[in-house]
Amino acid sequence: MEIDIEIIRKLAQPSTLPDGGKIVLAVLDGLGGLPIEPGGPTELEAARTPNLDQLAKEGTTGLSIPIARGISPGSGPGHLGLFGYDPLRYEIGRGVLEALGIDFELGPDDLAARGNFCTVDEEGRIVDRRAGRIPTEVGARLCERLQKETSIPGYEIFVRPVKEYRFVLVVRGPGLVDGLSETDPQRTGVPPLPIKPLTDDPAAARTAELLNDWLEQARRVLANEHPANSLNLRGIAKDPGIPNFQEIYQLKAAAIAVYPMYRGVARLCGMQVLSTGETMASELDTLEQHWDDFDFFFIHFKYTDSRGEDGDFDAKVKVIEEVDGYMSRIRALKPSVLIVTGDHSTPALLRSHSWHPVPLLMWGTTVRPDDVTTFGERACAHGGLGRFLAKEIMPMAMAHAGRLAKFGA
Amino acid sequence: MEIDIEIIRKLAQPSTLPDGGKIVLAVLDGLGGLPIEPGGPTELEAARTPNLDQLAKEGTTGLSIPIARGISPGSGPGHLGLFGYDPLRYEIGRGVLEALGIDFELGPDDLAARGNFCTVDEEGRIVDRRAGRIPTEVGARLCERLQKETSIPGYEIFVRPVKEYRFVLVVRGPGLVDGLSETDPQRTGVPPLPIKPLTDDPAAARTAELLNDWLEQARRVLANEHPANSLNLRGIAKDPGIPNFQEIYQLKAAAIAVYPMYRGVARLCGMQVLSTGETMASELDTLEQHWDDFDFFFIHFKYTDSRGEDGDFDAKVKVIEEVDGYMSRIRALKPSVLIVTGDHSTPALLRSHSWHPVPLLMWGTTVRPDDVTTFGERACAHGGLGRFLAKEIMPMAMAHAGRLAKFGA
Repeated sequence: MEIDIEIIRKLAQPSTLPDGGKIVLAVLDGLGGLPIEPGGPTELEAARTPNLDQLAKEGTTGLSIPIARGISPGSGPGHLGLFGYDPLRYEIGRGVLEALGIDFELGPDDLAARGNFCTVDEEGRIVDRRAGRIPTEVGARLCERLQKETSIPGYEIFVRPVKEYRFVLVVRGPGLVDGLSETDPQRTGVPPLPIKPLTDDPAAARTAELLNDWLEQARRVLANEHPANSLNLRGIAKDPGIPNFQEIYQLKAAAIAVYPMYRGVARLCGMQVLSTGETMASELDTLEQHWDDFDFFFIHFKYTDSRGEDGDFDAKVKVIEEVDGYMSRIRALKPSVLIVTGDHSTPALLRSHSWHPVPLLMWGTTVRPDDVTTFGERACAHGGLGRFLAKEIMPMAMAHAGRLAKFGA
Repeated sequence: MEIDIEIIRKLAQPSTLPDGGKIVLAVLDGLGGLPIEPGGPTELEAARTPNLDQLAKEGTTGLSIPIARGISPGSGPGHLGLFGYDPLRYEIGRGVLEALGIDFELGPDDLAARGNFCTVDEEGRIVDRRAGRIPTEVGARLCERLQKETSIPGYEIFVRPVKEYRFVLVVRGPGLVDGLSETDPQRTGVPPLPIKPLTDDPAAARTAELLNDWLEQARRVLANEHPANSLNLRGIAKDPGIPNFQEIYQLKAAAIAVYPMYRGVARLCGMQVLSTGETMASELDTLEQHWDDFDFFFIHFKYTDSRGEDGDFDAKVKVIEEVDGYMSRIRALKPSVLIVTGDHSTPALLRSHSWHPVPLLMWGTTVRPDDVTTFGERACAHGGLGRFLAKEIMPMAMAHAGRLAKFGA
């Protein structure tokens, strides 16, 4: 079923379609849902979605499996799959995701870690792993101090606040590698652990030494602060070296997302990130403004996931209905292929990402229609596309846009 | 689509569900069937199954492909798939299966072979590969003689009767390996073959020598018997070293089965085998008695397969109806996830295991319902789960029981 992205690279070509072969991938984060009462509708089924239903009726539908059956994806792997990468092969480390989440432009040599301020007692033992959830302003002030008062000779460092006790450390310079242990012992009553190399690579031992030296400096700086008088580093990672999206698919590709982390993942894959506003409507404005400049648009709608995580069924329904309203604006642009799906399910019932397959519709002039006339989980189970892995969506999109050459003679 | 069991091992966690996350895997052996007349119902469709239909209506359904499309599984690979192992990777040799089938507790160093008594002429050429299908009592007496009158110095041997001309030889001791040829030439008119190593491993040559010596002794013992005056060894194999089920899934797992072979496969995977009676009703008693002690129950119903093998459509229908009656007892225990399926199809029409996909229903609080309202082959073809490999059932069951952590950040 599954084809290697390197084969797609060989087959990718400029569109053969007269309409230009533009592709829109509209991602409603956490779209898939569950009924809140037995036998009831899911969020998507409960939503009034005349535009999505019309697209489903004219197009084809199916159910997307983000990673594999039973697996609930994080946002990183969920989007890697949508972009055609094998999420089991390319892993975006926590430190990298955290850096992307604050719009930090990570370079290929950068090593990123998620930092947590914590509280230690006089013996250096952790008494609060989150430093009493200090306010974001305090975290920001501490980051400023660390930025000014610490250094790693021969390297550039960036200490950037995220939220409350969370921050990002990025070290920039030659020869840094990942494959390092974390300092957080994940419990109180013991001191933070030293960073250790997890491989035999001498560069890992050297990177660990640099970071341990920095941690010592940082702890001296924080010693008289209260309650954030120490810190931990987690998920120390580098850019995983994902093959460039625009090169693989021969597409000028743009990403439109309100939340930094999704912009970051798109940038990591090599898409051009467009600046946009804070609302979903502003994302549509951005799409329209840049329509002529790109072949592929990834447009990300965050709030379906947010309301699912809140456990608010009705609010998730409303977000879906709002996105439904934007479909006419996308149709008016006349894309060659329009795909509407999610990166995973976030049922309000579960208040979390889940493993359930995600409804998908594909609409365009070369799409073979099926019998499905509405967009919903039960309906998509009868769709013409059946079940497929999320990483198979891009090859299908490319094909329907006239952008994949014949395989073999 | 398929995820390595080692990734599942990393994601496995105690259940996050308030109901405790217990899983019941109810296997109706050889459940899948075929119509006996064109356009007619299958055995499952013909059966009156109000309880299974209700479960299908409230839950979700699909079709399980035991190994791969077109492949008819033996009982070993069929169950390995259901337990989440790749049946193409872990092979349970015939000797091991035969030993499991007589409830022999095989150890990790044991080498097991299936033995067949046979008849040879004065020149040592086989004239009857089954020794005239001698009565089971005669086979048992011959095994007793071999047990007493043969030996392998430095090793323990076990010669155990199975049925008629069939027996099991187990050799216990250090340094034994499999990868050996069989003695049975699969035709008459020629003498049994010597056992030969199939690999370059010196241990294989040594193991072959030990077994050939034992065969010489055994043939001397049997020389004056009639008609079973010789023997063959087949499927010489060791425990394939299957990763422990309870460790992989972090589940306390129990197996309930009337037939020894299924208990044996479950034990080989590391489940705890519960003693039970001779009837399906007694298996339900066992399930109820041990409900509080385990997180996972594999309960095996044999007679759907037996009646299929008999070619008795109506009798298979009756067995299905009997099992349907037990569903209310399982529901009353309030499992978090209940799965009802088979290890393969055994259509009465074919009187044998077949390759046809197997109906499956999954029921529980986190299950996304589909449009299917009855449990049957045609209905399950429209199910929300679509088609999947049997080895994907356990990841799905784990997810629905709140027992799999999120993959990636």
